[in-house]
Amino acid sequence: FGAALPTAEETTYDIAGSSRLPPLRVLGQIHKTFIVCEGPDGLYLVDQHTAHERVLLERFQKARASQGVPSQRLLAPLTLELTPQQMALVEQQQEALLRLGFEVEPFGGLMVLLRALPTLLKQHPDPAAALAEILDGAIADRSGLSWEERLVMYAACRGAVKAGDGLTHDEMRDLMRQLEETDLSRTCAHGRPTVVRLSHAQLEREFGRR
Amino acid sequence: FGAALPTAEETTYDIAGSSRLPPLRVLGQIHKTFIVCEGPDGLYLVDQHTAHERVLLERFQKARASQGVPSQRLLAPLTLELTPQQMALVEQQQEALLRLGFEVEPFGGLMVLLRALPTLLKQHPDPAAALAEILDGAIADRSGLSWEERLVMYAACRGAVKAGDGLTHDEMRDLMRQLEETDLSRTCAHGRPTVVRLSHAQLEREFGRR
Repeated sequence: FGAALPTAEETTYDIAGSSRLPPLRVLGQIHKTFIVCEGPDGLYLVDQHTAHERVLLERFQKARASQGVPSQRLLAPLTLELTPQQMALVEQQQEALLRLGFEVEPFGGLMVLLRALPTLLKQHPDPAAALAEILDGAIADRSGLSWEERLVMYAACRGAVKAGDGLTHDEMRDLMRQLEETDLSRTCAHGRPTVVRLSHAQLEREFGRR
Repeated sequence: FGAALPTAEETTYDIAGSSRLPPLRVLGQIHKTFIVCEGPDGLYLVDQHTAHERVLLERFQKARASQGVPSQRLLAPLTLELTPQQMALVEQQQEALLRLGFEVEPFGGLMVLLRALPTLLKQHPDPAAALAEILDGAIADRSGLSWEERLVMYAACRGAVKAGDGLTHDEMRDLMRQLEETDLSRTCAHGRPTVVRLSHAQLEREFGRR
């Protein structure tokens, strides 16, 4: 079927600048990965993972700048075995982890107790695995950012919905409302675009209407 | 805002071949002009006017090839004043118009009575104006097709929803079901693409996911 239909083969994109998004009307989800929206000036495609990551990153950063990141105590602490590298980072950066909402208590050897986690991550299906991934992300990161910045960035990444996650219409609408409030000039952790726009003028050209 | 976001500047498209569309899930309408759908292999954008035109054209042609185009008598005939060119075409092509479902009776001078119209056009807000536009389209057409073919083509065009018409979700879904049953190899009356596809692979490339 591929060759039978018009299909966009090559596109060039501007790089996201510092502007905010206009109000977007959610149409639905494509490939369980992209949220399709109508804006005042065209079709907007939004990468659900990087959009949520950006929203969480900004929330973490704003919370740190004001009263601190809200944390949620676990009813029963989770026991977690770390790698030596992860353990060294936890021991060095216990204060940074606390400011990020993670209360991690060394328990002997490479074991730790996870006693509290950021409220923003409370719906994560596996908080202990998320913590290990955040530590690994910060360790592998070569951005030159501080440990605390790196931990925040990977906490946002691990807390965000993933490509492949089905979203309800309400969840998509909530995410778009939150994304509209963020500053798009912040690059996502991996430098990928969050939003791609096809303007009305371009759509009309594609369809020979101009 | 235009320069701030990634935006597709240049795209190249294959020309529609002879294949049929896969089943499409309707997400919604963009710019009251394009229907956005998810297919098994990507995002589909459909021009609502040319899609409906194509559906109507195929229905007219199938009906002519079998028992004739279903016609609907008006409760009260509409009086219509034609131009001399329109009148000459009506007089020459009265049989073709009848086979198309239009019963048009000369009434003296340039006046005609419209007594019946194709059932496919019965929801048209102004059937008399539609007839005049169909005649004008056929007169202006330089395609070399027969008068009857031209009348059919412009009847399909005039009967189709237009860009700017709001459609309900059900209307969009019905139109897509009908479009899926047509043979996309037929070019629309104006040679414009009906469907443009952005494949999953392309979407993932645009977002740096590949």
